[in-house]
Amino acid sequence: MMKRVMIIAVIGGEEASAEVAHLAEEVGRELARRGCTVVCGGGSGVMEAVCRGARAEGGHTIGILPGHNAVESPPNDHVEFPIFTGLGFARNSMVALSGQAVIAVDGAYGTLTEIAYALIHEVPIVGLDTWDFSYHGHDADRILRAKDPVDAVEKAVAAAERRPRR
Amino acid sequence: MMKRVMIIAVIGGEEASAEVAHLAEEVGRELARRGCTVVCGGGSGVMEAVCRGARAEGGHTIGILPGHNAVESPPNDHVEFPIFTGLGFARNSMVALSGQAVIAVDGAYGTLTEIAYALIHEVPIVGLDTWDFSYHGHDADRILRAKDPVDAVEKAVAAAERRPRR
Amino acid sequence: MMKRVMIIAVIGGEEASAEVAHLAEEVGRELARRGCTVVCGGGSGVMEAVCRGARAEGGHTIGILPGHNAVESPPNDHVEFPIFTGLGFARNSMVALSGQAVIAVDGAYGTLTEIAYALIHEVPIVGLDTWDFSYHGHDADRILRAKDPVDAVEKAVAAAERRPRR
Amino acid sequence: MMKRVMIIAVIGGEEASAEVAHLAEEVGRELARRGCTVVCGGGSGVMEAVCRGARAEGGHTIGILPGHNAVESPPNDHVEFPIFTGLGFARNSMVALSGQAVIAVDGAYGTLTEIAYALIHEVPIVGLDTWDFSYHGHDADRILRAKDPVDAVEKAVAAAERRPRR
Repeated sequence: MMKRVMIIAVIGGEEASAEVAHLAEEVGRELARRGCTVVCGGGSGVMEAVCRGARAEGGHTIGILPGHNAVESPPNDHVEFPIFTGLGFARNSMVALSGQAVIAVDGAYGTLTEIAYALIHEVPIVGLDTWDFSYHGHDADRILRAKDPVDAVEKAVAAAERRPRR
Repeated sequence: MMKRVMIIAVIGGEEASAEVAHLAEEVGRELARRGCTVVCGGGSGVMEAVCRGARAEGGHTIGILPGHNAVESPPNDHVEFPIFTGLGFARNSMVALSGQAVIAVDGAYGTLTEIAYALIHEVPIVGLDTWDFSYHGHDADRILRAKDPVDAVEKAVAAAERRPRR
Repeated sequence: MMKRVMIIAVIGGEEASAEVAHLAEEVGRELARRGCTVVCGGGSGVMEAVCRGARAEGGHTIGILPGHNAVESPPNDHVEFPIFTGLGFARNSMVALSGQAVIAVDGAYGTLTEIAYALIHEVPIVGLDTWDFSYHGHDADRILRAKDPVDAVEKAVAAAERRPRR
Repeated sequence: MMKRVMIIAVIGGEEASAEVAHLAEEVGRELARRGCTVVCGGGSGVMEAVCRGARAEGGHTIGILPGHNAVESPPNDHVEFPIFTGLGFARNSMVALSGQAVIAVDGAYGTLTEIAYALIHEVPIVGLDTWDFSYHGHDADRILRAKDPVDAVEKAVAAAERRPRR
């Protein structure tokens, strides 16, 4: 049996400021330097930046897209392996499930669903400048907060390694 | 063509305190009194309470369940029409999409995904003692806050009536 | 606990000849006469005809639609309860799962997926003038063949009653 | 922009005779020799054999699995990139959509859904010793029949190249 490399999901919005894109690209670079594969939603914004960073360092990138094909959902130029679901935003739970850990960078409502799915399914989740939420009695602090891209990757890899095999 | 009645989605957790269950049951009663049909996730807790209330006033109730059948996902006793999806928590987006408006009562992470899906798809969403979240630049205040069950139903029905036909 | 009525799924194509539409409408009428609720894909063709028949006899009708809302997927005029999935044709497995038995009337490739899902999940399936298929070693004859609408409904109801509770 | 390699979906049953496994492994080998990546359902039988063949020739393999994680759905030993969907057999449409063409080897009811999804979404489909079906008026002959693994790969690659960009 081949040794399987670690896969980390990176989630975030379709639109990203220059600053957020820079953070996401650095997350992608650092993941690839450590031999991790990136899985993401395959689109623009944070998704494009993380793929660009990962590919620049020779890493693999998988994009799980909402549409049925590349006309409906053009993968960004740095997605190596596009997966077409035809499920729209219902594909978000799959992105969270397919990482051994998840890193959220910034993000909008779609990212919020992915964070919640990671929490439901007990996938470790690291937040870099992302959502906060609270509700009495619920442990919203299960998001591990990171201070920069290298810290985010370190926390995600460490959490994935501690995770019981699934 | 028959006139179709209004369908309102009610979301909330599988576990509910006596107080929360009371709120949800009152939401169900008030919806049925106004001739609305309830759609929900079909399970226990808030879902069971809202169905019980709606049925007590002669309303219809639809439960969209995560499992493949009633052994995997027993519908609560007050679900009139169970829909089995086999999709697990990925069915949550369907619950939000199937209401002309959504009322969130309390809730855990699954409810958070449903709130976010309502916001993504621009389904009006009313909150009764539910999640708060924030992120710079994002309009988390698009949740209409209600002070009690009757207020929640009034706000949901009014928002559904204002909504462009879809 | 209320007694829940029997729900039967009826599947078939978006386009139906006058003859096929007549068969489907008779299936709907006969189901409603026996107190069964119809679940279907909610669209045109066979789906519209079966809903029209069921409503004419006072039965309930549920349509599980592919789009996110009534603009993307207009329910036919005889769907009482539209469920919007946003999943496209991936919603087909849900239609098969939500009947206690399935009746296939005519149909195209979408119907073929629904027949196969019924066979995978061991939901009893009755065929009225529908697909045939074969492959060495596989029991394609698990489709119960009906000679007319009343026979189809009788076979479906009997199979649903024999089915172990799920 | 990087040049993206061709991805071909290979579908077939969870159980495979020695003869069928040999066919599937040869399909995987031939795809990898031509630089194609394999996408499949990630499980046993035909899926395992095609991944083993592809990896033996240095190709990449992606498995789109039904469960939420590797405990629910263990990927076969030759899946390089497992994608976890949590959707059960509803994930079948994604397997068909993610290939630029599809090759069906043998197969049971799950394979029948994937063949039908390929036909619905107009993904070219090649059959190697697989299902036959017929229904008056429907073009079941849209399956391109192959005589051996090399022929199947040649037909799939040629069809994928002719396909309008999506």
